[in-house]
Amino acid sequence: METKLTFSVIGGDRRQIECIHLLLDRGHRVNVLGLDNFKDSRANLFTKIQRELFLCDVLLLPIPYKNRSGHINIGQSCLQVSLSEIEEYLGDYKPLLVLGKADGEFEDLALAKGLSYIDITQLESFAILNAIPTAEGAIQRAMEMTDRTLHGSKILVLGYGRIGKSLSRMLKGIGADVSVEARKEEDLAWILENGYRPVPLKDLEGVLPFQDIIFNTIPHLILDRKKLKKLSKNAIIIDLSSYPGGVDFTSAKELDIKASLDLGLPGKVAPITAGRIIFEVMMDCIGDRLK
Amino acid sequence: METKLTFSVIGGDRRQIECIHLLLDRGHRVNVLGLDNFKDSRANLFTKIQRELFLCDVLLLPIPYKNRSGHINIGQSCLQVSLSEIEEYLGDYKPLLVLGKADGEFEDLALAKGLSYIDITQLESFAILNAIPTAEGAIQRAMEMTDRTLHGSKILVLGYGRIGKSLSRMLKGIGADVSVEARKEEDLAWILENGYRPVPLKDLEGVLPFQDIIFNTIPHLILDRKKLKKLSKNAIIIDLSSYPGGVDFTSAKELDIKASLDLGLPGKVAPITAGRIIFEVMMDCIGDRLK
Amino acid sequence: METKLTFSVIGGDRRQIECIHLLLDRGHRVNVLGLDNFKDSRANLFTKIQRELFLCDVLLLPIPYKNRSGHINIGQSCLQVSLSEIEEYLGDYKPLLVLGKADGEFEDLALAKGLSYIDITQLESFAILNAIPTAEGAIQRAMEMTDRTLHGSKILVLGYGRIGKSLSRMLKGIGADVSVEARKEEDLAWILENGYRPVPLKDLEGVLPFQDIIFNTIPHLILDRKKLKKLSKNAIIIDLSSYPGGVDFTSAKELDIKASLDLGLPGKVAPITAGRIIFEVMMDCIGDRLK
Amino acid sequence: METKLTFSVIGGDRRQIECIHLLLDRGHRVNVLGLDNFKDSRANLFTKIQRELFLCDVLLLPIPYKNRSGHINIGQSCLQVSLSEIEEYLGDYKPLLVLGKADGEFEDLALAKGLSYIDITQLESFAILNAIPTAEGAIQRAMEMTDRTLHGSKILVLGYGRIGKSLSRMLKGIGADVSVEARKEEDLAWILENGYRPVPLKDLEGVLPFQDIIFNTIPHLILDRKKLKKLSKNAIIIDLSSYPGGVDFTSAKELDIKASLDLGLPGKVAPITAGRIIFEVMMDCIGDRLK
Repeated sequence: METKLTFSVIGGDRRQIECIHLLLDRGHRVNVLGLDNFKDSRANLFTKIQRELFLCDVLLLPIPYKNRSGHINIGQSCLQVSLSEIEEYLGDYKPLLVLGKADGEFEDLALAKGLSYIDITQLESFAILNAIPTAEGAIQRAMEMTDRTLHGSKILVLGYGRIGKSLSRMLKGIGADVSVEARKEEDLAWILENGYRPVPLKDLEGVLPFQDIIFNTIPHLILDRKKLKKLSKNAIIIDLSSYPGGVDFTSAKELDIKASLDLGLPGKVAPITAGRIIFEVMMDCIGDRLK
Repeated sequence: METKLTFSVIGGDRRQIECIHLLLDRGHRVNVLGLDNFKDSRANLFTKIQRELFLCDVLLLPIPYKNRSGHINIGQSCLQVSLSEIEEYLGDYKPLLVLGKADGEFEDLALAKGLSYIDITQLESFAILNAIPTAEGAIQRAMEMTDRTLHGSKILVLGYGRIGKSLSRMLKGIGADVSVEARKEEDLAWILENGYRPVPLKDLEGVLPFQDIIFNTIPHLILDRKKLKKLSKNAIIIDLSSYPGGVDFTSAKELDIKASLDLGLPGKVAPITAGRIIFEVMMDCIGDRLK
Repeated sequence: METKLTFSVIGGDRRQIECIHLLLDRGHRVNVLGLDNFKDSRANLFTKIQRELFLCDVLLLPIPYKNRSGHINIGQSCLQVSLSEIEEYLGDYKPLLVLGKADGEFEDLALAKGLSYIDITQLESFAILNAIPTAEGAIQRAMEMTDRTLHGSKILVLGYGRIGKSLSRMLKGIGADVSVEARKEEDLAWILENGYRPVPLKDLEGVLPFQDIIFNTIPHLILDRKKLKKLSKNAIIIDLSSYPGGVDFTSAKELDIKASLDLGLPGKVAPITAGRIIFEVMMDCIGDRLK
Repeated sequence: METKLTFSVIGGDRRQIECIHLLLDRGHRVNVLGLDNFKDSRANLFTKIQRELFLCDVLLLPIPYKNRSGHINIGQSCLQVSLSEIEEYLGDYKPLLVLGKADGEFEDLALAKGLSYIDITQLESFAILNAIPTAEGAIQRAMEMTDRTLHGSKILVLGYGRIGKSLSRMLKGIGADVSVEARKEEDLAWILENGYRPVPLKDLEGVLPFQDIIFNTIPHLILDRKKLKKLSKNAIIIDLSSYPGGVDFTSAKELDIKASLDLGLPGKVAPITAGRIIFEVMMDCIGDRLK
């Protein structure tokens, strides 16, 4: 894409910083508001919401765009900006909005103002590429939590979605003895094809006692108290599934089993890679939309 | 599954022979008609269509069930049996039918007689597992057709469906330099994740001149005359896609490019594995159905 | 080996603790002196050097056996024991000694007393197996030090000895783009065979600017100031080579390049695996010696 | 290497043809005698031994240089040339000789005439690189001989030298369940590190009954009658070791076990790759010698 565009970035974290560097490297103009620790003299820095910030082709909001208090997710910065505050500026010049986890409030706004948006967390290619830093981050956590090598360890991955696939491949690449639990016949066939030991759900309890490490990627309770009791006392659990997660952590604690819940790994362990993924997926989408 | 069942097998090839051995090994009763070169004293051999053959729990027909002349696909045997000939026997005792490539004629019969059937070629797990012998067979063909090693060769796989996935993984495992062409963004993301070079369709022409070997898995014309002209004179093509295939073979011949169409590889290069796949997928289905 | 033996263990770290558990699990008797945090009611604990400690078949000393102050390497324990202090007990009942880094002083003692010993650090199989936790530990360090994934990163391994081999294999298994520098033609041939990019020493400077991460395994200065200047400003270096190491750390600091020296990784990141390796290699040797 | 040299090639097979193409592509002059099916107008063709043929920098003789009748190994060509016939031409202008399998007769000649030579089969890097086409050729043979896929098969590799290493890696890459037999502790440690099942010689008999395919790389009798009797009736054996080989073929035949002896695979299955290896190893050596 040869056309030079203007991007405005409001809030975010180190992923957005990397993404902005890449935009600037390719000659695009970038306006920035509310990104702590951001330094790049090629960008235009803003210190408050103002009209000029919205005169852009693409407006990049955080991923996820909203924080727990319902404001735009502007990291450690002391700025507090709500969606309604930026609403008035979005009427005339209509940038394409790029953001994560669009909710009802956001959809209403977009509809009312006639704005196009891309919820990047809904894009399959974004989710697949993000599985890479998630899987690596999970491996790093496992290395930190155990006193043994992954090489030669018996490792069970629960679930064979995007993260399960990427994680299994890397674990086998390191030299672990990998089993993967899945429900669907077709997933079990792929697990076999890839050289892991397929574990249908009905056989799960039988294999639990032999595992050194269990990674969960299933987003609902699978390791309940009954199953936790089957585990070896030295086993560790790393839960990568989103809320409410797949592990009964209260029981795990009572049973003295080390269990860790690790969310948002890409931004934590590999913000540069995660930022590059945002950049690449966003540019692919924009290329299709703006043409 | 502990219950001992009665299977009747009509026609087929070496895959069915392996499948029957496995059934007999597990203590099931097996009736056989029209399988050349089959020898196993534990089975009941029939020489013609008769009522007793249909007094069974499962009737296994060939995969695909019909040959070109419209009869049941009974291999080299001199028997000619049409679907209508067996129709009358299927009324009273209703076996579960297992077969490949059920067509309209077959569906009508099943409906009319109130018969349940499983078209094994429609099952995702069958298709995935069959990708393994297909991929290995394709690798064997490539080894036979070339004067160079796959290790270090530049190899392009067209399409990232089941066969494309299995084939790419094996080629990389041998040491080839693997590129994979795909259309969908998400497939391209997976290709990257797995460590192959992703080639979007728009970049295909650019990479063609550098390839030593091209495997096609896309079932419609992709290597047309224009693209074939881009190839190196030493390149070879192996087309694994079903009719009408993805290669303009007439142009390939005129351009003096070695191109080979290889269909039905599992039954040809690895009938034992292919027969075991039929057995396992069939037993999984039956387990679910007969319970 | 069915015979039950008596082992005495003086000093060490968590690796020895794991090793003792494994000895006890197999029914051997174990005497222990100077191992902090060791708890296993099956062992006989000693609190000072005394004759009974030396009435054993095998005496396991630390690995390396001597600490910087020249005493036996008894970890955090407040015990200070010199080699000469145990000398007098070693005359009558002659146990087989197992230890690490035997030096001149030790060899003299063994000769004078007519004692057999095994310096486990001199055993090729010990060194190879230890390359596994070393390589994994190095990968953990790299994951912790970088803000990007190893997957897709350009990584250069300097040296293709035991650690270089294990490390390259794991890095490729994760999905890194791996180059390996080596001097010998035969190592370069193996590097190619394994699917890494071979870098002869003469080409080293040319590839340095493109690397994200460099692992050094060569035990003499290879990354001098001139070479360090070729590196990208975001590159990181992890030096795994023993004293004096292969990196000019002073220059690296001045040039603001992140460089880390990581020694003794097996005992730090994977003491259980490292202890099991000691156990297995020791038992193999003993099996051969005591027969 | 910028200097243009003159090469003379006497005899050989398709490997030499590929090697000559590569020499010509880089601008060297090439004289050729006794290479059937060779066509390249850039080379000077000779039809008999004559002085001009020896006015060269490098004289490339066949690999191995001698055939069974004791003449120079000139393939299907009707030329019969003995070493003594070319002796007289080698006195004045002293080319560097490159050949395979130099024997006493050859060494005497070189000494008498004061000639330098390189026996390429003695070079470690040549042997390592040749392990690649050997391993691929062995895999092709196995695919052709069996009715099952390598994926999922239990495969035993006897010996962990160059071919054993390359072969194990590729088999695992395809998805086989790989065990490797070795004698040395250090080889067994590497086998474990690489993720194969290590089989010490003393455990060999115990694992034999479970193998689908056995590749032998050990150049002395290892699969004797007693061991062959342990094999499953469907097992196949592929012997890659040089004369006298590692398999009692007479007993194998009597026991109805499929066994195949495959020598010289690189030249048979991948002459282009094998020729390129000759070219690259030769040029590396020449670079060092002629400087």
